[in-house]
Amino acid sequence: MTKWVYSFGGGRAEGRADMKNLLGGKGANLAEMSNLGIPVPPGFTITTEVCTYYYDNGQTYPETLKTEVLEALAHVEATLGKKFGDTSDPLLVSVRSGARASMPGMMDTILNLGLNDLSVEGLAKKSGDPRFAYDSYRRFIQMYSNVVLEIGLHNFEEILEAHKHAHNIKLDTDVAADDWKKLVGLYKDKVKEKLGRPFPQDVHEQLWGAVGAVFGSWMNARAITYRRLHDIPGSWGTAVSVQAMVFGNMGNDCSTGVCFSRNPSTGENAFYGEFLVNAQGEDVVAGIRTPQQITNIGKAAQNSELPSMEEVMPEVFRELNAIRFKLEGHYKDMQDMEFTVQQNRLWMLQTRTGKRTTSAALRIAVEMAREGLITRKEAVKRIDPSALDQLLHPTLDPKAKRTVLSKGLPASPGAASGKVVFSAEDAETWVNDRKEKVILVRIETSPEDIGGMHVAEGILTTRGGMTSHAAVVARGMGTPCVAGAGEFRVDYAARLLKVGSTTVKEGEVITLDGSTGEVFLGAVPTIQPEMTGDFATLMEWVDTIRTLKVRANAETPLDAATARKFGAEGIGLCRTEHMFFDPKRIIAMREMILAETEAGRRTALAKLLPYQRQDFADLFTIMQGLPVTIRLLDPPLHEFLPQKDDEIDEVAKAAGVDASVVRARSAALHETNPMLGHRGCRLGITYPEIYEMQARAIFEAAVQVNRETGRTVVPEVMIPLIGTKKELDMLATSINTVAAEVFKETGQQISYHVGTMIELPRAALLAGEIAETAEFFSFGTNDLTQTTFGMSRDDSGPFIEVYRAKGIYDADPFASLDQVGVGELIRIAAERGRATRPSLKLGICGEHGGDPSSIRFCQGAGLDYVSCSPFRVPIARLAAAQAALGGEGGSGTK
Amino acid sequence: MTKWVYSFGGGRAEGRADMKNLLGGKGANLAEMSNLGIPVPPGFTITTEVCTYYYDNGQTYPETLKTEVLEALAHVEATLGKKFGDTSDPLLVSVRSGARASMPGMMDTILNLGLNDLSVEGLAKKSGDPRFAYDSYRRFIQMYSNVVLEIGLHNFEEILEAHKHAHNIKLDTDVAADDWKKLVGLYKDKVKEKLGRPFPQDVHEQLWGAVGAVFGSWMNARAITYRRLHDIPGSWGTAVSVQAMVFGNMGNDCSTGVCFSRNPSTGENAFYGEFLVNAQGEDVVAGIRTPQQITNIGKAAQNSELPSMEEVMPEVFRELNAIRFKLEGHYKDMQDMEFTVQQNRLWMLQTRTGKRTTSAALRIAVEMAREGLITRKEAVKRIDPSALDQLLHPTLDPKAKRTVLSKGLPASPGAASGKVVFSAEDAETWVNDRKEKVILVRIETSPEDIGGMHVAEGILTTRGGMTSHAAVVARGMGTPCVAGAGEFRVDYAARLLKVGSTTVKEGEVITLDGSTGEVFLGAVPTIQPEMTGDFATLMEWVDTIRTLKVRANAETPLDAATARKFGAEGIGLCRTEHMFFDPKRIIAMREMILAETEAGRRTALAKLLPYQRQDFADLFTIMQGLPVTIRLLDPPLHEFLPQKDDEIDEVAKAAGVDASVVRARSAALHETNPMLGHRGCRLGITYPEIYEMQARAIFEAAVQVNRETGRTVVPEVMIPLIGTKKELDMLATSINTVAAEVFKETGQQISYHVGTMIELPRAALLAGEIAETAEFFSFGTNDLTQTTFGMSRDDSGPFIEVYRAKGIYDADPFASLDQVGVGELIRIAAERGRATRPSLKLGICGEHGGDPSSIRFCQGAGLDYVSCSPFRVPIARLAAAQAALGGEGGSGTK
Repeated sequence: MTKWVYSFGGGRAEGRADMKNLLGGKGANLAEMSNLGIPVPPGFTITTEVCTYYYDNGQTYPETLKTEVLEALAHVEATLGKKFGDTSDPLLVSVRSGARASMPGMMDTILNLGLNDLSVEGLAKKSGDPRFAYDSYRRFIQMYSNVVLEIGLHNFEEILEAHKHAHNIKLDTDVAADDWKKLVGLYKDKVKEKLGRPFPQDVHEQLWGAVGAVFGSWMNARAITYRRLHDIPGSWGTAVSVQAMVFGNMGNDCSTGVCFSRNPSTGENAFYGEFLVNAQGEDVVAGIRTPQQITNIGKAAQNSELPSMEEVMPEVFRELNAIRFKLEGHYKDMQDMEFTVQQNRLWMLQTRTGKRTTSAALRIAVEMAREGLITRKEAVKRIDPSALDQLLHPTLDPKAKRTVLSKGLPASPGAASGKVVFSAEDAETWVNDRKEKVILVRIETSPEDIGGMHVAEGILTTRGGMTSHAAVVARGMGTPCVAGAGEFRVDYAARLLKVGSTTVKEGEVITLDGSTGEVFLGAVPTIQPEMTGDFATLMEWVDTIRTLKVRANAETPLDAATARKFGAEGIGLCRTEHMFFDPKRIIAMREMILAETEAGRRTALAKLLPYQRQDFADLFTIMQGLPVTIRLLDPPLHEFLPQKDDEIDEVAKAAGVDASVVRARSAALHETNPMLGHRGCRLGITYPEIYEMQARAIFEAAVQVNRETGRTVVPEVMIPLIGTKKELDMLATSINTVAAEVFKETGQQISYHVGTMIELPRAALLAGEIAETAEFFSFGTNDLTQTTFGMSRDDSGPFIEVYRAKGIYDADPFASLDQVGVGELIRIAAERGRATRPSLKLGICGEHGGDPSSIRFCQGAGLDYVSCSPFRVPIARLAAAQAALGGEGGSGTK
Repeated sequence: MTKWVYSFGGGRAEGRADMKNLLGGKGANLAEMSNLGIPVPPGFTITTEVCTYYYDNGQTYPETLKTEVLEALAHVEATLGKKFGDTSDPLLVSVRSGARASMPGMMDTILNLGLNDLSVEGLAKKSGDPRFAYDSYRRFIQMYSNVVLEIGLHNFEEILEAHKHAHNIKLDTDVAADDWKKLVGLYKDKVKEKLGRPFPQDVHEQLWGAVGAVFGSWMNARAITYRRLHDIPGSWGTAVSVQAMVFGNMGNDCSTGVCFSRNPSTGENAFYGEFLVNAQGEDVVAGIRTPQQITNIGKAAQNSELPSMEEVMPEVFRELNAIRFKLEGHYKDMQDMEFTVQQNRLWMLQTRTGKRTTSAALRIAVEMAREGLITRKEAVKRIDPSALDQLLHPTLDPKAKRTVLSKGLPASPGAASGKVVFSAEDAETWVNDRKEKVILVRIETSPEDIGGMHVAEGILTTRGGMTSHAAVVARGMGTPCVAGAGEFRVDYAARLLKVGSTTVKEGEVITLDGSTGEVFLGAVPTIQPEMTGDFATLMEWVDTIRTLKVRANAETPLDAATARKFGAEGIGLCRTEHMFFDPKRIIAMREMILAETEAGRRTALAKLLPYQRQDFADLFTIMQGLPVTIRLLDPPLHEFLPQKDDEIDEVAKAAGVDASVVRARSAALHETNPMLGHRGCRLGITYPEIYEMQARAIFEAAVQVNRETGRTVVPEVMIPLIGTKKELDMLATSINTVAAEVFKETGQQISYHVGTMIELPRAALLAGEIAETAEFFSFGTNDLTQTTFGMSRDDSGPFIEVYRAKGIYDADPFASLDQVGVGELIRIAAERGRATRPSLKLGICGEHGGDPSSIRFCQGAGLDYVSCSPFRVPIARLAAAQAALGGEGGSGTK
């Protein structure tokens, strides 16, 4: 016969922690504590199977449920020596819902159930506090009426307010016992008026009403929506936990509090917590009274004048401290506990894994591993990789005062202050010439702004999403960025930034928090990150576990050095186009684009060659023999041409042509869908001389660095946007020809690899053929996502949030890899590529390379490495280690 | 032992027509004719295996080759009673290369081989014509020196010119026998000078030199490139055919000519051909002398004053006519034959399937089937579906005079004349108010121009490719269009069209030939198509064979009626957006876009509803119960907003807002990559009211037409750009809700289907899930090609031609389906979709739906129907029948 009810309390329980599916999270945890011999107010849990039965059988209960509940209730009564509904010393209970996963939309708690016109008198007498008893009763009526009888709270609030007004009472605390008693009468009248029958006096009727309300709430609209959005099946059902009430507000031998087994801010292995004497749980949360520290050390640290629990309740403190060790030892993690002391008796109401700051999480994990409480692997699994980000960037001093101006998207983490400038040119001038620190403020940024973005302390844009140009570039640079802060209005002409009634002028200081998206007026002090100690220790453990290599996307010496500092094992993506925006180079680049003949282009490219060679030589030198993957020119040429009139004139002058020529060329290069246009290897096919120059720069630099440093440099030449094998064949042949020329000229031969991005669905499908030529694949998941979804990163802003709100996308597919769609193409390409060439090296270099769930996917798909922005390298290392340890499967957009 | 040499001639042959791989096309065909007992100058073929041996063995020949060649030569000598190298009656031979497939870049023919200083005298004596003999000799020296000895032709031409100049000779025909003799001496001197040794006098040395040159040419650069581009393996090799020379220029009992077994222009079953007495093959081709007709009927038809062969060589004519029947009967197709008569003896030099006009092809196929020569299925296989196009559109009168202005792309077939106008508005005014016929000339067209495009006789654009807006829309309308005619300069302000030194003013007449891309000054008379007779007969046969249904892409009543006339079995794609550009509707459409609230949008949509309902009612009525697939709104909303200042003002006025509001909305809707932007079902998700209005219009119209006509109307509602199942679920639910409302309101229930376009790679991959909801898939191969290749139709112009020229694409993937890439996604989607829902209806509605090779693919992939523009329906029907009959596999871009 199915067991529908599980008892707990009194040092034993019928359930266990691993019975969450049956008892819900709350019920299972209460059972577990009981089994550990920890004092828990006794109670029982009605299983989730009852909920399923209830809905499968026309909202009726199993036959034997009533008997089982009565038996369980009798066990509670016996344990406490009180009777449910008793008129002299009544047992009061709380009723709570509890699903497998915490679920908003489910029924709130009902407290103090079991009070009626008679038992309230018993409670008054027994507690010696009629005010407490009637206050408890009116709270119960209010709560029960709202949740079970569906009589809105405002009905009762109006009565209370009217009473307070009539009696000139200001605060609830000034309402006396008699007032509460009168109010209870008025409340009951209101219930009768609304309901057509009196407030239930039968405590069993009360109990079954509450149980029914819990099960009913499982199918309310909010809960259904929540489940649909989170893919929680309706068949899971909810449990109901009924538990004896204990009170921390029955006198000065009572108290209530919360405590942590270790310090949740610092992670220090020290007991930490707060409590209030003669108070209820809400009072601690509400913050009306200043809480007292649990320990003497805590008291000293807080400079508190109030006595600690260690002082005022030494016995209870000792008991609580023992429970702290017991629970942490049992759960093997830092615990967040709630307790109530009723008349000097300690009751534990809840324990759960405590939330903590990232630095605390690191310290706790490392120390627990050292203490032998957990293994190093477990320690590694404990840290949320994404949370590491806050350790790698400056953060706002939490104690500093701040004036929030507005909020945008947290596009690139870290905090920074600086003077507002409105153009990339100004940023460069102010920083280089005037030695100012600046925040670059733009409506949106474009590749032309790259110089200014590099020198700025932070970047603020008023348009664009998490994957806008500003966001992507800023993350790559590790520069704090708030993007798409749409409440701001930028007035370029007047050099003003407006939000609401506030106006910020050029040169005024603002502060950005790129981790929260907040923008502050003035300078807010920041705290610099440290990457030593526990962080370094954990990362050492991480590196012994992971099998995926981690590289960085980097093109400047600074990026490359940062990448090395963060533990990158090579460069997975060097975007050569970023190298052409330097003022000295952009002129030659534009000259190349404006040239009408191959000879003209070659002349201009010859001017770029020494710069490119030096770029690569620098990277090879910094990377000290680690692999460097260089992607040949990718963006359409029009991105390099100026848009503004004065710039057009300048370019025309430099090129010795009329401005109309520049405009005409710009118009001719205009594209309707540049993402799908004349770019990537299509440039290499139509203008072979461009890739030839880049290949020459790569091989000359490799030979040079090899000679200078004696280290082996093995460049990986990567061709973007391949869609057919023939493209790759043609370009690989040309690269091999250049290599042979350089080796002949220099008399030195070096190893190198030619490979391709897989960023088009066709390339993924034809990977078997393409791998005949390609020595490596790097999945360009940004473009692969764009093409697989037929969705532009730049243009998805207006609907992607609607898609997420409506539950069509679980996650932004540009941030977290779509494993079922884009992922299938990656798996197909990996399989077919490796079938042709078993030694094929596979990596990923899109934004997803730094996303933990995407990294887990990469591990599963058999990739060799992930490549991400330098500042995400530690995150990727940790995520890779966790992926190697297995665990939860990935997610995907359905 | 391998046989290396195959003899033919004298009424027998060692080879056969099906031995093309071994003997090459030419050798196999000569063998076949010999076997048929047809007089063929005897000869032999050295097999392709010798070529392979030659390259596998350091350019040496198999041991036994020499013996086999000598034996074969002896057979030729015996057959003709002449000796190779004989000084009194020499056997002369031609040497030709011959691969499996005709291959440019291979060695040219060498004629008259076997002549030397002695045999030339024998030839002179035997023929009684020393001039003929020495002319033949000098031609041989020239040809052999050029091809085998690599001495440029110019060397000999200079000598000839100098001689003619010195002797004041104008024409080659005035060069006398003695002159040729002298020249032969000078030619030989030049050879000796260049070569360091004399011109070979040993005829066997001549023969082996020529054979070596043929094999050598197999590996020359041009041949290698050609093979690479056409995927012909080098291992195939070439054969060498050596054949006895016969001469049609040895006197008046000699002649040479070409003839066809049926008339290649009309297809009439009448012997047709031309010949010249005492002439060489080149003379017929060169057109210096007027050829004579073969038959008396031909003579009468041509009003020729020259005697026919039937008259002057009645015996030979009878023999030739008998061969005509024999060869046509044998090959079962109209033959194109070459012959030479030497001293009253008929020799057949070649027979091959004759080229013919499309109307001739139709007549021949239908008549041959009626004659029982071929089956109806074979008749259907004989017609090139693409060629049908010229029968469906007006064509230029071939006899009419014309002045070509320039040439663009043949974007939409047919010919048309009209007065030049430069804007869509002008086109409408001129046609509607002034009753003029116009040609709309634009740099490029946009959806706003649709009204003017509809009324124009033809459309000319100076920018854009075969899949530009103008081209796609024109093909859909069946309007002739020349696109991307880049030599023209359009001056909108001055209303001028310029090309070279010619200027065409507004109102001047031009003529377009959309089948060739030519643009003519003035009016060129056209011929209207007829679709009766043989055409109708063949299409009847076609429809009994094919299994694929053929639908049309149509949205206007005119399109739908045309589609029916051409045999469409339903509408596969009704693009509802085209319906909103009508001036009466565009205002409401823009009002909808400018509305800031859902209520505002609903008000505007309510105005559009009656129009949409009438649109659909018209289509349902015309289609008489055939299926009609209606695609809900697809393009991004900014396409409906005006760009020009005066239009913006107009819209602002109509909407009662400031022009700045219109501009701001336009700017807000601007997209970087509109193809990948806020369009398709993304509009349906963000603005559900739009699709709700469209669904209502569909169901109300279906109910109305059902009531009015009594016919069952089963609308197919198609949702574009689906990428995830949830999108489709949400929108299908909304459509079902609207349907239920309409059925309730009208008291009538009708059947309908909800399905989706598969036009994104993700949709193809997730087809199994999507088919849980979708009742049909229609492959939108335009967008699927764009996303699979990551290539925009609009932007691929600048590189796609380079790609084709470099052999990266065999065909434009937007015109002919990429079967290995895009095709794999279609196969995946079809398989996964049908696995979920076996009854899933599958169709294709991209431009590829009218492309024969793509249709063959669709048959193979198990699709139910193809849908194409109305004017391509007959082509698709024929291609579908051919696909059902099987045959050649498809092509694909590698």
